[in-house]
Amino acid sequence: MNRPWILDYDAANCTIGAALAIVGEKWTFLVLREAFNGVRRFDDIRRRISAPRQILSERLVRLVDEGLLRKVAYREPGQRSRSEYRLTEKGLALFPVMVALLEWGNTYAASPDGPVVELRHRDCGAPVHLELHCAEDHLVPSPRDITPIPGPGARRLIAAS
Amino acid sequence: MNRPWILDYDAANCTIGAALAIVGEKWTFLVLREAFNGVRRFDDIRRRISAPRQILSERLVRLVDEGLLRKVAYREPGQRSRSEYRLTEKGLALFPVMVALLEWGNTYAASPDGPVVELRHRDCGAPVHLELHCAEDHLVPSPRDITPIPGPGARRLIAAS
Repeated sequence: MNRPWILDYDAANCTIGAALAIVGEKWTFLVLREAFNGVRRFDDIRRRISAPRQILSERLVRLVDEGLLRKVAYREPGQRSRSEYRLTEKGLALFPVMVALLEWGNTYAASPDGPVVELRHRDCGAPVHLELHCAEDHLVPSPRDITPIPGPGARRLIAAS
Repeated sequence: MNRPWILDYDAANCTIGAALAIVGEKWTFLVLREAFNGVRRFDDIRRRISAPRQILSERLVRLVDEGLLRKVAYREPGQRSRSEYRLTEKGLALFPVMVALLEWGNTYAASPDGPVVELRHRDCGAPVHLELHCAEDHLVPSPRDITPIPGPGARRLIAAS
């Protein structure tokens, strides 16, 4: 077997690792799922994801601090002002992660009845899916068609053999 | 604001939730990242992700049990037989999740130097990226162009108002 080149490089500044440091936790992801579902209010989110109140509060604070959600005040008739949580551009940019998890879950973890949610193109109503493309606009059907190479941020390990 | 239809449906059988129950944890994801990097041996994975030995052992057992990795024996000259861990088809199918996290991390969490890893099309060498398409083959540029609708597995809540 060829020794993977990546063993000679530092893993510390990997951007997947950096992304996971922000969103790599089940509750955080479920809160974001609900935001994409349009579920924006504390009690609705809590009921949907069955999170303990304290955990949900912490995750919402973190997501606002990281700039993925923003708080918007609303007031129901006769009640005090409350906050709802909406996706920022940075949060919306996680949509492909959500779709990729949905597609994998629909293939490998769905109930016999099938998917709970389907995504449709607003303009034409057709189902939506992810595709890998290259900049020459070839469809890239499998990870086996891809070569990872060191990028500009790759740091060679000094002691690499 | 329109009340999201999803509030009238059960969240318990959501396939994103089911996917996260298997892979929704930082260490698990980092192990899979290394598998996609071609890093397959215990000590190499451990050094790359800085995981405690016990945690890495547990995650590898789980990933094999769930059918995302398979163990393949190898033997270095003069040493005992050991196992390396390779992606199954079910594991390879998580590649879009990995690419989506990489793209988001490269945009929002990269060091000033830029990405650590770039993905290239093996055939033509061009950079690879994810796109959302619909079945009518329209490019779907934003989550705002998508409508989520209840799928065949959606379960209406009895007590929904």
